Amino acid sequence: MKLYFAGSIRGGRADAALYARLIAHLKERHRVLTEHVGAPSAFPTVETGMTDGDIWRQDMAWLRESDAVIAECSTPSLGVGYELAMAQTLGKPVCIFYDVARGPLSAMLTGDPYYRIRPYDSEAALFAAVDAALEAL
Amino acid sequence: MKLYFAGSIRGGRADAALYARLIAHLKERHRVLTEHVGAPSAFPTVETGMTDGDIWRQDMAWLRESDAVIAECSTPSLGVGYELAMAQTLGKPVCIFYDVARGPLSAMLTGDPYYRIRPYDSEAALFAAVDAALEAL
Repeated sequence: MKLYFAGSIRGGRADAALYARLIAHLKERHRVLTEHVGAPSAFPTVETGMTDGDIWRQDMAWLRESDAVIAECSTPSLGVGYELAMAQTLGKPVCIFYDVARGPLSAMLTGDPYYRIRPYDSEAALFAAVDAALEAL
Repeated sequence: MKLYFAGSIRGGRADAALYARLIAHLKERHRVLTEHVGAPSAFPTVETGMTDGDIWRQDMAWLRESDAVIAECSTPSLGVGYELAMAQTLGKPVCIFYDVARGPLSAMLTGDPYYRIRPYDSEAALFAAVDAALEAL
């Protein structure tokens, strides 16, 4: 499958290394269109010289091209929230994962029956939950 | 006008007092449907006993009812990002404000030509920008 991985960039890079490990795991069996989300830099897209308009057009093209969205939502992010809503309007399956120890997820996500949401309490549990979610698609 | 004010709740309440002052300002000339966003509590909706499904249905009903969305985006929030995208799919005018000192806004917002985005550097400048944006609608 072609996957759109969503994680925080400008909202905060505290989980960038986790995104990278999860993307590497996803790539064992799928194609990840948004691999830069796991890059070790703070602003991986800005560093390429892309304008914000370029980034938005590229990400929206990848979102339309994707078969499903995998989102790690432990770090709050305006861009990820936007992508999850746009993915819904495009009819893409959306699987959301978050660390339960980091507090409650937005009610706009947990209250919306469209999303498949899985809290996790360890990285091993996250990887297992992602695998199970992808197999169920 | 009936305004949908969007600000972070579960993403972080660092700006809750600012939201309250901005909502009070808006209410001088408009109706604010989402007044609870400025409440002094951490989770104003949860404290009412509403489920996440109730919150989502209420907020989506208010979004559909609103004439415009006013969003204060200095604190990253999944819910606000979701609301901004959903407001766009509903065709609502969306005005976004953020404190320039708090770092760059998501490229999914700044890169999307749909939004009217105004950075500000003081609370007085924010209030003036909000007034100007509402007059231009």
